[in-house]
Amino acid sequence: MFDRSNELGAWDRDHLFHPATEAGAHTRGEIQTRVISGGKGVYITDKSGRTFLDAFAGLFCVNVGYGRQKIAEAIAKQAKELAYYHAFGDYGTEAPITLSKMIIDRAPAGMSRVYFGLSGSDANETNIKLAWYYNNVLGRPGKKKIISRWRGYHGSTVMTGSLTGLELYHKAFDLPRTPILHTEAPYYFRRPDTTMNGEQFAQACVDMLEDLILAEGADTIAAFIGEPIQGAGGIIPPPTGYWSKVQSLLKKYDILLIADEVVSGFGRLGRMFGSDHYDIRPDLITISKGLTSSYAPLSGVIVSDKVWQVLVKGSDELGTIGHGWTCSAHPICAAAAIANLELIDEMDLVSNAHDTGAYLRSALAEALGNHENVGEVRGDGLMAAVEFVEDRDNRIFFDASKKVGEQVAAALLERGVIGRAMPQGDILGLAPPLCLTRHEADIIVESTLKAVDAVFVR
Amino acid sequence: MFDRSNELGAWDRDHLFHPATEAGAHTRGEIQTRVISGGKGVYITDKSGRTFLDAFAGLFCVNVGYGRQKIAEAIAKQAKELAYYHAFGDYGTEAPITLSKMIIDRAPAGMSRVYFGLSGSDANETNIKLAWYYNNVLGRPGKKKIISRWRGYHGSTVMTGSLTGLELYHKAFDLPRTPILHTEAPYYFRRPDTTMNGEQFAQACVDMLEDLILAEGADTIAAFIGEPIQGAGGIIPPPTGYWSKVQSLLKKYDILLIADEVVSGFGRLGRMFGSDHYDIRPDLITISKGLTSSYAPLSGVIVSDKVWQVLVKGSDELGTIGHGWTCSAHPICAAAAIANLELIDEMDLVSNAHDTGAYLRSALAEALGNHENVGEVRGDGLMAAVEFVEDRDNRIFFDASKKVGEQVAAALLERGVIGRAMPQGDILGLAPPLCLTRHEADIIVESTLKAVDAVFVR
Repeated sequence: MFDRSNELGAWDRDHLFHPATEAGAHTRGEIQTRVISGGKGVYITDKSGRTFLDAFAGLFCVNVGYGRQKIAEAIAKQAKELAYYHAFGDYGTEAPITLSKMIIDRAPAGMSRVYFGLSGSDANETNIKLAWYYNNVLGRPGKKKIISRWRGYHGSTVMTGSLTGLELYHKAFDLPRTPILHTEAPYYFRRPDTTMNGEQFAQACVDMLEDLILAEGADTIAAFIGEPIQGAGGIIPPPTGYWSKVQSLLKKYDILLIADEVVSGFGRLGRMFGSDHYDIRPDLITISKGLTSSYAPLSGVIVSDKVWQVLVKGSDELGTIGHGWTCSAHPICAAAAIANLELIDEMDLVSNAHDTGAYLRSALAEALGNHENVGEVRGDGLMAAVEFVEDRDNRIFFDASKKVGEQVAAALLERGVIGRAMPQGDILGLAPPLCLTRHEADIIVESTLKAVDAVFVR
Repeated sequence: MFDRSNELGAWDRDHLFHPATEAGAHTRGEIQTRVISGGKGVYITDKSGRTFLDAFAGLFCVNVGYGRQKIAEAIAKQAKELAYYHAFGDYGTEAPITLSKMIIDRAPAGMSRVYFGLSGSDANETNIKLAWYYNNVLGRPGKKKIISRWRGYHGSTVMTGSLTGLELYHKAFDLPRTPILHTEAPYYFRRPDTTMNGEQFAQACVDMLEDLILAEGADTIAAFIGEPIQGAGGIIPPPTGYWSKVQSLLKKYDILLIADEVVSGFGRLGRMFGSDHYDIRPDLITISKGLTSSYAPLSGVIVSDKVWQVLVKGSDELGTIGHGWTCSAHPICAAAAIANLELIDEMDLVSNAHDTGAYLRSALAEALGNHENVGEVRGDGLMAAVEFVEDRDNRIFFDASKKVGEQVAAALLERGVIGRAMPQGDILGLAPPLCLTRHEADIIVESTLKAVDAVFVR
């Protein structure tokens, strides 16, 4: 192993192309990379020895918290026994088989199979391809468009970046591309008509969705994809009645429902799956972050029996289904996931997400709900957002160039807590590890209040 | 950890959706999954205790061989210290920074940065997006089509499956999609005009490429992507002069060259990179399998300084480059890659791939080159293919429905050696770990000869 850590800064500037980077500022050294070197529970430590409470769990993914030796040991054991063999066709290894059973045991009713990938993006690629294959097998070759929502986040490959409904992920990349369509986000705080209550706004969203389906032709629409609660788009819980109305509509027009549970899967909302939490019955479910707490890269598509039966028919007629990655069902990643799911049970983290999540959101609302620059405190389970406005009474937003959300996140970081400025709007996102204690929740709330006060000086 | 291995078969049938599967046959138990449980060097062992010489190195990826404890220990150490932190924006961890330096040290001249992903597919998604971004920044928004080759393999997401030029990966998935175009594979053995020599055929391929560029308009073409040696398409080395002619053409029309080195990168051809082996000077390079020997999922895009300068300009004008996966630059995967690259050096595997590769190919040609059902024995470095024909003199191929290639691979498996029937044509592919010895090469050749004799009974 190289040990020239004094050169790390130069190597980083000269050779590493970071995700979501400002390439110019990074190359010129105007941005210094903070190198994280360790972590325990909700805390991480950088190479200089500074410690932070990570109230965003990495990228809302390290659900069990940092430093869990049970998962590290499962990874180590698998690496020593058999680091890799593929799962193509009639080959496989033990860990992903065991894991598939554990996932189906935890999944919503009606789900039967798991396809493993490496990232949420690739899992949604699989979803798109399966929706198309499904309609080809059923003799409906024209039923191929996918409807997504503005402010959805579903990945950043060409097609999944198109599903995503955020400007940052479209800009200069020629996205979105056909056949992806977008409909309104169910974003109650930003509803155009402020006289509407939640249920009225939900109905308005669903009416817009139906207008889109009818304008395009229902026989051209393969699937609708949505996060049970929108995540990167601003941590936006659905208004009451939204999902039941959406599902009725999709059923009426024979459109598949893909629930993207990359963020909500495995406990973040205080239920094992967001679909069960909001009473959603999807045909396909996307999973990734919470599956391994990102201790290893792993994603999956959970396939309902309804869809699987069509895949069986298809492969009987057409032969091998030509889809797969070399590291699909990787044994080390599956071993990490098994240990992670066991740990979620052993530590009772789903209940804790429910209880401590409610505590955190309530304390946040109490501390900040009446602040004149806070438009809304919202969330569900262990996800919370504070949205900032210039004028609370008239719901006037700040000019984006002021980067108010980023200022608050930076002020929070100075106080030792990591939150995240969501990419579109002035929204501070919080999504701590599911092992958060009430004491740690108090620290987050106190620090957030101080950060807000520092940015919005009277 | 579950220990109900007697139930593995049922769980596999009922819950695991394998890549490249026949879903129906698998679900009904007509296909039994062989569960691999251990490996050492070029050998793997299944749960029943049977051992096989893996002459395809997994999916031409386990280049250092199985059971390397140095890599397992590097993975274990990183998992215990810090399993995960993200690399978005101004965060990072040490291992991927170190690895980026190690990759650039080994890469062809002119390359400067590495973007990390998880799979070859996602790395090629990154390449497509970068090629588009590049031309947007340069004010050429119409220059966006990507030319790939028939029989190329570049992934199986929607866009990278479109780059791929194999029927299996297109069928029933509505691929390829715009703006991907395909040109002729430089497949000398299958050249339409058998009177041509290698150089004439190379010129004919390049003429067809130029015709395509002119027909579409050079100002609409962003990039050309190709594997230095075609892999999944049939292990097809380029005819003499092919790459130098292609490069002259791309330069003439200002088209980026993407070298997909997922298979050839890190030693398989007896040079660290296939680009150096064939004197290719790419603008972007795709890497994955050989980077970690698949001990952990990791991929990368190596970006030339020429492209990087445009990305710098772009981000200075447009802000953050909105692209990234949660597990980009994953520390465990990077630690595995560092140990793997060190092991390649320590074991002198690049030289061994050159020397033992030449020995294997020569022994194969001697044993099988004159067989009446062998049309060609070909390859380069430690990649070899035997292509079967019904009539050698008149180059008449078998009817695909006879699945002759699959029969040979099955007969080889019965003799304890794993080769792979390539998906299009009757082609046995061999790509053993780079640690192969001459003795092991002899076993592969002897077993292949016996398998061929068993299938083509006189």
